[in-house]
Amino acid sequence: MDAKIRIGICGYGNLGKGVESEIAGNPDMELGAIFTRRRPVESLNTRTDAPVVHLDDVMDWTEKIDIMVLCGGSKSDLPTQGPEMARLFNTVDSFDTHAKIPEYFKAVDGAAKEGGKTSIISIGWDPGLFSLQRLYSSAIIPGGTSYSFWGPGVSQGHSEAIRGIDGVKNAIQYTIPNMAAMERVRKGENPELTAREKHTRECYIVAAEGADKNRIESECKTMPDYFADYDTTVRFISDEEFEKNHSKTKHGGNVIHHGKTGDGNNQMIEFSLKLDANPEFTASVLIAYARAAHRLSKEEGTGGAWTIFDIPPVLLSPANHEELIARLL
Amino acid sequence: MDAKIRIGICGYGNLGKGVESEIAGNPDMELGAIFTRRRPVESLNTRTDAPVVHLDDVMDWTEKIDIMVLCGGSKSDLPTQGPEMARLFNTVDSFDTHAKIPEYFKAVDGAAKEGGKTSIISIGWDPGLFSLQRLYSSAIIPGGTSYSFWGPGVSQGHSEAIRGIDGVKNAIQYTIPNMAAMERVRKGENPELTAREKHTRECYIVAAEGADKNRIESECKTMPDYFADYDTTVRFISDEEFEKNHSKTKHGGNVIHHGKTGDGNNQMIEFSLKLDANPEFTASVLIAYARAAHRLSKEEGTGGAWTIFDIPPVLLSPANHEELIARLL
Repeated sequence: MDAKIRIGICGYGNLGKGVESEIAGNPDMELGAIFTRRRPVESLNTRTDAPVVHLDDVMDWTEKIDIMVLCGGSKSDLPTQGPEMARLFNTVDSFDTHAKIPEYFKAVDGAAKEGGKTSIISIGWDPGLFSLQRLYSSAIIPGGTSYSFWGPGVSQGHSEAIRGIDGVKNAIQYTIPNMAAMERVRKGENPELTAREKHTRECYIVAAEGADKNRIESECKTMPDYFADYDTTVRFISDEEFEKNHSKTKHGGNVIHHGKTGDGNNQMIEFSLKLDANPEFTASVLIAYARAAHRLSKEEGTGGAWTIFDIPPVLLSPANHEELIARLL
Repeated sequence: MDAKIRIGICGYGNLGKGVESEIAGNPDMELGAIFTRRRPVESLNTRTDAPVVHLDDVMDWTEKIDIMVLCGGSKSDLPTQGPEMARLFNTVDSFDTHAKIPEYFKAVDGAAKEGGKTSIISIGWDPGLFSLQRLYSSAIIPGGTSYSFWGPGVSQGHSEAIRGIDGVKNAIQYTIPNMAAMERVRKGENPELTAREKHTRECYIVAAEGADKNRIESECKTMPDYFADYDTTVRFISDEEFEKNHSKTKHGGNVIHHGKTGDGNNQMIEFSLKLDANPEFTASVLIAYARAAHRLSKEEGTGGAWTIFDIPPVLLSPANHEELIARLL
């Protein structure tokens, strides 16, 4: 048997914890170390007994980690950390700011090429598995249209936006897909759907004592980019109710592609996810692509950045080619 | 703009007709010729004005066809035709006898290597897109279980089996998935399901005049491999009703993968197809993989057979990498 793939986790938030817990399901891998900015590193309360290393000492680990899984955020961590790490390690990340992916790809690609390393960027479910479905579907039924619906589930970005309103103590936002709109798509009506027609937004807010709830509700509902273009519901709840009912990270969604072939025959391709624990699922996708990055890194001329579109599916599975053909094809 | 990919169609049944009709949706392709065993070739009633060529003259076309799409049947055509053609042309086929795929892969691989050609085998939706989903899902949630359900839709093999019964003039068989079983899978019950519990079979039969319907029904329902292990319904109908209501080729199905992460969190990945015209959809998948085969064939060292597992998704799309990242990732 080959040596196990030594995984490094860079960043120990929900996603890093997910990678830590899910590596165990992959017998060809082991957790090499967890890297953090926290000091002292001993204060990090991890689940496994893997070494916890300060990010300043990451250079000592270049020969001891095969793949670094970058678990930092897309807003403040990855734009600099992604390229920095890609120069030193083979990496996989979940950079998810859609509009900035082309720019991020170039930065990581350049750095990885300089370091002779292999990086796979923007892995997860959207971007990630949803992107894959959009690609497969549009290549197969080129005249069709792909619709992506998200939820029901928690949007971290929208929850944070509400928490930024003065007088808000805590908040969570659920993105709810419009089932009627989804049905229209499935029926092949090929509708033009505005943002408002595709999703509604439900907000649960704990207000600070004495805060003006009417003002908070109005500021929330009219917030540009986040809520103004949607039908938004705001409910004020207690700290206790928040703890009890709103600490889960359920999410999911659907990619529905509809098109016609021949003399108007309807063809429908649908992909859906229903996730109890969003970060653990994203971590699981990252781990499978870490395996692919490891294998790719051993082939000549593979240095640079890759996306989910470039990776042959066979590289994700620990099983060999013959076994896959016999068992899954 | 690059020269168009010149597609050859080998075999002009429903699948070949599907390829002929769907090439038009792919501006980077053109139909080079249709190859048939029929004589005279002029008797073939095609939809386009592409040349119709007898298979005996196929050697004259090795420089004029970039990819040969093999549209013959898995039972009697492909086992010999697949390797023969793979020696002469880059090919794509939909070989779908699951149990014999490993053997077929080896035969085509050997022939394609001898000829320095590139072949992609067993393309379509099952084997094909369903196989892909089983691979992606099991690599991402390795502890989970994948369930494949087929239908509601027409099974050609089962329909033919009924037509083999003495006294049967015409017959069609619909495979119906058990919705309750699907719900149990979606809920994460991880059930052990027998063949009978996953699907039922509905048969519509036109009996020959004076035939013994009781005997036909009994022979059908007890037929080993095909019906004995299922709950089967038989209805006798008239020629007219058969023509009117049972000439469609609707099909589809679902691949549902359920597993757990962390402390028992349910994660569900589902892929489904709802197809009005099964052969046109399969043809569309073949065409997308013909594009991939063409691109692969231009890279050094790619001669041999490939499966859907080996193909980087990016090769399916006519769009370039930068555009795909910006638009679909």
